[in-house]
Amino acid sequence: MVSDLDRVFSKNAQGMKKSVIRELLKLTRRPEVISFAGGLPDLSAFPVEEVADVTLDVLRRDGATALQYSPTEGDPRLKEELIAHHEREDGITLSPENVLITVASQQGLDLVAKIFIDRGDPVVVGLPTYVGGLGAFRAYGARMYGVPLDEQGMKMDSLERKLDKLKKEGKKPKFIYVVPDFQNPAGITMSEERRKKLIELARCHDVFVLEDSPYKELRYEGEAVKSIFSLDGDGQVIGLHTFSKILFPGMRLGWVIGPEAVIQKLTIAKQSTDLCTPAFTQAIVAEFAARGLLQKNIDSVKEIYREKRQVMLDALDEHMPKLKGLRWTKPQGGLFLWVTLPRYMDSEELFFEAVEHNVAFVIGTAFYCDDGGRSTMRLNFSFPTKEDIVEGVKRLAKVIEEHDKEKKTSGDVVVTP
Amino acid sequence: MVSDLDRVFSKNAQGMKKSVIRELLKLTRRPEVISFAGGLPDLSAFPVEEVADVTLDVLRRDGATALQYSPTEGDPRLKEELIAHHEREDGITLSPENVLITVASQQGLDLVAKIFIDRGDPVVVGLPTYVGGLGAFRAYGARMYGVPLDEQGMKMDSLERKLDKLKKEGKKPKFIYVVPDFQNPAGITMSEERRKKLIELARCHDVFVLEDSPYKELRYEGEAVKSIFSLDGDGQVIGLHTFSKILFPGMRLGWVIGPEAVIQKLTIAKQSTDLCTPAFTQAIVAEFAARGLLQKNIDSVKEIYREKRQVMLDALDEHMPKLKGLRWTKPQGGLFLWVTLPRYMDSEELFFEAVEHNVAFVIGTAFYCDDGGRSTMRLNFSFPTKEDIVEGVKRLAKVIEEHDKEKKTSGDVVVTP
Repeated sequence: MVSDLDRVFSKNAQGMKKSVIRELLKLTRRPEVISFAGGLPDLSAFPVEEVADVTLDVLRRDGATALQYSPTEGDPRLKEELIAHHEREDGITLSPENVLITVASQQGLDLVAKIFIDRGDPVVVGLPTYVGGLGAFRAYGARMYGVPLDEQGMKMDSLERKLDKLKKEGKKPKFIYVVPDFQNPAGITMSEERRKKLIELARCHDVFVLEDSPYKELRYEGEAVKSIFSLDGDGQVIGLHTFSKILFPGMRLGWVIGPEAVIQKLTIAKQSTDLCTPAFTQAIVAEFAARGLLQKNIDSVKEIYREKRQVMLDALDEHMPKLKGLRWTKPQGGLFLWVTLPRYMDSEELFFEAVEHNVAFVIGTAFYCDDGGRSTMRLNFSFPTKEDIVEGVKRLAKVIEEHDKEKKTSGDVVVTP
Repeated sequence: MVSDLDRVFSKNAQGMKKSVIRELLKLTRRPEVISFAGGLPDLSAFPVEEVADVTLDVLRRDGATALQYSPTEGDPRLKEELIAHHEREDGITLSPENVLITVASQQGLDLVAKIFIDRGDPVVVGLPTYVGGLGAFRAYGARMYGVPLDEQGMKMDSLERKLDKLKKEGKKPKFIYVVPDFQNPAGITMSEERRKKLIELARCHDVFVLEDSPYKELRYEGEAVKSIFSLDGDGQVIGLHTFSKILFPGMRLGWVIGPEAVIQKLTIAKQSTDLCTPAFTQAIVAEFAARGLLQKNIDSVKEIYREKRQVMLDALDEHMPKLKGLRWTKPQGGLFLWVTLPRYMDSEELFFEAVEHNVAFVIGTAFYCDDGGRSTMRLNFSFPTKEDIVEGVKRLAKVIEEHDKEKKTSGDVVVTP
């Protein structure tokens, strides 16, 4: 075995540590734990029968092709379906040269990082933001600069100041990373006004916007906001998409849309990363979409999640203690909501108490590129059953209530009238 | 659109160019061209019916799980099957912590490069070697050092000199990359003696051996040579494997074996690269293997390719002009053989003449990290039909014969008696 292995690893790999979150999540695997921690879709929502039908037909019709190598760019038929989907959903006109099929959107994040980031390069992200984005950018040594969110999404005045400050220091971010619809983790949707301002700032500072959009189709109320990609229309935006939440994650299919020159570079990078996305899964999902089953699935998933979200919101209203500073977001779609605790509470401390009482969440710090988020947590409502949501919220409420009492009794907290 | 895009790309991405080979291959797509250029398996060998059966059963039994997220490390059941496979094939004892499932072995190459290579790091490769390996290492800025092959594989005296020279210059390679069985492109198998010497040199210089083994199971004659991994048994070797050639490439499944500390780091790197390999395809291939269908498939594929290889060797013997310096390898397995032309011939020049005469190959320079290989070419015998192999070899022989005459008439070549 090679000696001094830790020094043999690349500098970027030396920085890759086992995720603390993943280690914490291992504590939640006992069957008696109700977990709001994962980001998993509802298993019962998967269209298993339809997948079986479609797969059989694909194998009967094009079996050999579906089991052979395929173009790095992606299955042309699947691309056609996606182009039609964007046209319908968002009024965007794309050509096949604007689309690259990926192994879900995590590969989109990886490839974008691979083609843009040199060690030390600045990237702007939300406070909080998607942990998988942070991981992908860190793996190439990016230096992250955080901009806070409010209930309208990333704060544009803060972003403007951040970009100006970076400019003065001679630093130009490679891109601004946002999850504008029902953000993971906070459940917040960026307003159209902010989106337009974001495009304006990106143009002015000559940087890309990376728009990560896994949940956009899953809106349960209110009116859809146009994608940043469609509001721009001028090649300033790279869009990441995935079938993981609107269909299922088990085939690992996603896609990137963007200016042709960027898609071309991503395609070359993909060649040496995995040659091509599986022909088999692409053929199945293309046929699935062609039969109108994708839209049907989105409609039925929305019904399920809309109800679950309401169950969680109602349970929170009913069971959470009335504490000053305790609040949560009311997402109009997506899979997550975000709880802000009173400032004297640390969600990591709370986590261990919660797991002892058989309920789990993700601690907020996971989603911060700085030290922020200590008094926040993410709750998922797509995976647990409705019964478990109610019972889990009850348990969580009790844990918070007791934690609060302890804090106040111990004198850690000075309660002002 | 962001200005001066070429400078916005990362340094590694700036070096990623459209592959000349891929561009050349586009010329070979006319249906009248018989192509020995690809590396594709025989479509008619794919077990389509069995895949349909297995997939239906998997969906009926575990449908929802097969469509859900899965562990980054890989499906435990598939790992079990692979551990048994290695035990049977090679007498290696592995634990699940020594195995990581990947999106085929190109992802294995990418992840190994990601965790080891900083820009400028030395890597030792064969002259020639697999072009996808070169691509993966280049994508992280590796500096490649080539060591020539002869009919016994990589030349160990040359390797020893190269390692000594690098050591004197204060350079330590991250690994030595070899494809020891029926090498792509040259069809050469490394002798056991060389493998042992390679391990000795790697230990002495404290570097890893990266053993890429996509074809090992496809031996058509002669006795199997033990894998470098099994001859070592001491954590000096990282092994890359894939289902692409022994089953089919369309599900993009492969696996890496290695010391636990390396597999752990690769797993962390995979998390931010694509989260996990598709649960769906893993479940299908695990069930396929559990039913004994993998071994059955290997046996039937071997029959097909053994015959095709013989057809190509016979056709070359019969039709190739008798020229001094014209020779080819006689691989005992795999998918490729390697033609060395007389030194006054340039295979790139020949390529265009060949395509005009409706036959194609890959020019040898693609497989060299230096300027070598100008008078070599790779021929694939797994994809074309037997009839096309004979007809294609006839065409190629004629092109070479005419090219030779032209060269000699033009006075470019001084023919010594």
